Amino acid sequence: MDLTKHRAMLDRAVEASLTRGYWTPFSEMPSPKVYGETANDDGKRAFEARLNHPFTIDQPGTIGEVGNEHSPYGMPLGVRYPKVDLDKLLQAVSVAEASWRQAGPEAWTAVSLEILSRLNQRSFEIAYAVMHTTGQAFMMAFQAGGPHAQDRGLEAVAYAWQEMRRIPGTAIWEKPQGKNPPLKMEKRFTIAPRGIGLVIGCCTFPTWNGYPGLFASLAPGNAVVVKPHPGAILPLAITVSIARDVLRESGFDPNVVTLVAHAAGDDTAQRLALRPEIKIIDFTGSTENGEWIERNARQAQVFTEKAGVNPVVIDDVADLPAVARNLAFSLALYSGQMCTAPQNIYVPKPQADAVAKALAEAVSKLVADPARAVEILGAIQNDGVINRLEAARKGNVILDSQTLTHPVFPEARVRTPLLLRAEASESALYQREIFGPVAFVIATGSTEESLDLAARGAREAGALTFSVYSSRPEVIERARTLASEAGVALSENLTGGVFINQSAAFSDFHGTGANPAANAALTDSAFVASRFRVTQSRSHVA
Amino acid sequence: MDLTKHRAMLDRAVEASLTRGYWTPFSEMPSPKVYGETANDDGKRAFEARLNHPFTIDQPGTIGEVGNEHSPYGMPLGVRYPKVDLDKLLQAVSVAEASWRQAGPEAWTAVSLEILSRLNQRSFEIAYAVMHTTGQAFMMAFQAGGPHAQDRGLEAVAYAWQEMRRIPGTAIWEKPQGKNPPLKMEKRFTIAPRGIGLVIGCCTFPTWNGYPGLFASLAPGNAVVVKPHPGAILPLAITVSIARDVLRESGFDPNVVTLVAHAAGDDTAQRLALRPEIKIIDFTGSTENGEWIERNARQAQVFTEKAGVNPVVIDDVADLPAVARNLAFSLALYSGQMCTAPQNIYVPKPQADAVAKALAEAVSKLVADPARAVEILGAIQNDGVINRLEAARKGNVILDSQTLTHPVFPEARVRTPLLLRAEASESALYQREIFGPVAFVIATGSTEESLDLAARGAREAGALTFSVYSSRPEVIERARTLASEAGVALSENLTGGVFINQSAAFSDFHGTGANPAANAALTDSAFVASRFRVTQSRSHVA
Repeated sequence: MDLTKHRAMLDRAVEASLTRGYWTPFSEMPSPKVYGETANDDGKRAFEARLNHPFTIDQPGTIGEVGNEHSPYGMPLGVRYPKVDLDKLLQAVSVAEASWRQAGPEAWTAVSLEILSRLNQRSFEIAYAVMHTTGQAFMMAFQAGGPHAQDRGLEAVAYAWQEMRRIPGTAIWEKPQGKNPPLKMEKRFTIAPRGIGLVIGCCTFPTWNGYPGLFASLAPGNAVVVKPHPGAILPLAITVSIARDVLRESGFDPNVVTLVAHAAGDDTAQRLALRPEIKIIDFTGSTENGEWIERNARQAQVFTEKAGVNPVVIDDVADLPAVARNLAFSLALYSGQMCTAPQNIYVPKPQADAVAKALAEAVSKLVADPARAVEILGAIQNDGVINRLEAARKGNVILDSQTLTHPVFPEARVRTPLLLRAEASESALYQREIFGPVAFVIATGSTEESLDLAARGAREAGALTFSVYSSRPEVIERARTLASEAGVALSENLTGGVFINQSAAFSDFHGTGANPAANAALTDSAFVASRFRVTQSRSHVA
Repeated sequence: MDLTKHRAMLDRAVEASLTRGYWTPFSEMPSPKVYGETANDDGKRAFEARLNHPFTIDQPGTIGEVGNEHSPYGMPLGVRYPKVDLDKLLQAVSVAEASWRQAGPEAWTAVSLEILSRLNQRSFEIAYAVMHTTGQAFMMAFQAGGPHAQDRGLEAVAYAWQEMRRIPGTAIWEKPQGKNPPLKMEKRFTIAPRGIGLVIGCCTFPTWNGYPGLFASLAPGNAVVVKPHPGAILPLAITVSIARDVLRESGFDPNVVTLVAHAAGDDTAQRLALRPEIKIIDFTGSTENGEWIERNARQAQVFTEKAGVNPVVIDDVADLPAVARNLAFSLALYSGQMCTAPQNIYVPKPQADAVAKALAEAVSKLVADPARAVEILGAIQNDGVINRLEAARKGNVILDSQTLTHPVFPEARVRTPLLLRAEASESALYQREIFGPVAFVIATGSTEESLDLAARGAREAGALTFSVYSSRPEVIERARTLASEAGVALSENLTGGVFINQSAAFSDFHGTGANPAANAALTDSAFVASRFRVTQSRSHVA
């Protein structure tokens, strides 16, 4: 398999990653014009056909069935996945890895790009799978779970390609020896994949957070074992099955990409993470589990995205209702179950009441019509989110969280954002992630204190986003300095159609690796460069 | 400070790292024509003036003196270095780091290149310092300690520059919105250095092994603390002092580069390695110490070069004396105290005696004239090498190690290589590093077994070099595959003026990170890419 088919896309992706303007080859609109008249229906049918059936995946080491996903919209999915004997599976993966590593950068890249194209064609099926595992509303499930995730995968392939292609296949080394003939050698350089990568998926963005690691490992010739969260297996199972189709059709061993589904609460993730065959791990999930892997999986290169506390600093605003609308949308979007959602809104005390009031009004208005609200809020993914929300309601409530009834899925767990008031001194309350629809308006002594608390939260508890509102250049400048030092992406004065919790592939770096929220960025050179090694041989030539 | 002065050198270095042919801006010949008529005398005088004096370095936190270096050529150096209060020093380094990080990629790179130029001018002084701390003969001390080390430093700067310059300072992101006006944002990207780097030097190649980490950290804006081995402080102390001169003259805080000299056997390395301020560590030394740092310094990105067992596989040779001469030189060079020196020479049993005899003859001839021999052998760096050598002499000796008298330095510890015979089955004897002038001729059942043992040694005990001799293409092919899988650089049929233990910057990757000898390569993208992060800010534009 060569690069001809997808060469233009690859070159454009490399260019986009260097110029970092807007670009994508994958349309984010679920439009019949782009995806075909029957795409939605076909995708929905394909998804529904999977319900209450075994998910067929012909990989070795199957010793039964596993799977107990429950849609946050109310129904059990009933999909049963192969239960895996890790020893047997990893044996087969090692065999596949040994042949895959011989294929070389062009084939690895071509296969990766073809998988991404196929994933794009299956965006509707994957969207329904994402929706009914994560609880995202359909539009987000389509965009973030489909084209935006594919973008992030392509971005990883483009970065890997850039790093690999700078290694020449051969070189002539000719060293002058004064009056004697030069020493002349031919050197041959080989991209040597690290081995087997492990992708540990999360239950909120299984594809968006899973594809960067999957493709960053696959494109430089590693095999990849995908271990989804037990609550969101289906989107990654479909992904694995598409990858295996492409591998098989391209003449490669499909066991280059395999699935390890497992039951909630068992130790599969830990056992896999410590296997000596696993040389790379990409993890998205809780700080506790991420740190366990960083500490214990010493045989592997470990990339983690964990928890964070994303701050908003309001110094002054020209149009408070516009700011409140922008923030309200960010708080409500997927019920705050995004790693980029804001949590702590710092406001100088004199303005705190006005901001709190405006925010409460904007949120109330946004969720006033349940039929429209559920398309933003989606559903709550799991009991943990509900429990944290209920516990948080005992705080100093500005706007209580409501339970809404979904017009189509009456059993869906739909909750509106909870707005709490806190004083700057109560950092124990707010300087920790409360994952879900909970936000604080924190009254501070000054914008300076707001900025310091925002930066301290990022440094100590992690953060992926930081938002500032000010008309004063010196405040913006200070925010840029603090955000850069704390390793968090800053958004300034967002009032329009861009929201703090959006991160665009090829343009926005997601995470930095410079604070506890993540030890790497999606995607930069550091995210791909250590996934392969360069080996060489040399001999004299005449 | 801008890049004008050294721009051509930088561009050429980037090009060389991409094409990987022969190139260097730093002449390896200690010639008066290149370095100036008085360069040798000046350098020698400068070195001698340092003996039995305090080494002045005006960094904060000095609380006394330390230093007990002893030349392997016989004399105590008597140089006394500042003894450091780590708390006070790191406080000052943190202050320096905070201002240095503001200077930006161009200034960081310009300062790094100017330091390298100055180091080159001081190559003779550094050569004498390297010679009288490591025991290298003068020519090697000059080449490896001077221009070759500077090459490796420049290579690191070139890689860092490549990675940094691909990040645009700003980008305009313009997303179409159908019939509505596009969303348009300006994004600003900043290179955010990781923090403070720590370079832990070794006692055999303090500059060659120290410069890659020093410059790979410095060029992307990190401050660097240099902690030399207590037995080889002077070459790195001179380096630090030159770096500080350049920083000061360029208007920067000299505490961006500082020295921590300490007494042998204390816990300074460990205490430094665990400091929260230290975000990057470059270590060269024993496997035990390297693994301790990998395991414990969890707050830092850790790069290590540790021990290895470098194999030679002899299948067949057209010209045994030429092969023996080439190998004898590699065994004798700096008394085998190179991380790239061969140790295990695998030969099928029927040829083993002939190879052993030829090698013994070649070594004997090479060291027959002490005056010439010492210019290859140098002197033994430390008692540990002598002790291992003495213990090894109890083995099955092919050629015993002799003690030679250095014609100029009668107290120098000069030993010739010890050649031992081993059977393939005695892997406990030879599959571990015996650092120093000890090599085994290992009789195997076949070349296939030789190759397997060579690869197993590399995989399990680590290796930086692998040499094969064969006229059979299938043997060469098999060696390439095994070497690539074991992550070790292969040299094929070396009989001329290139030796297995030579590794040229810009062309040869030194180490791969794919076997226990090292967790990184000098220098590739992975060696530099994670030493900085990219942070961003974004705002709407009209």
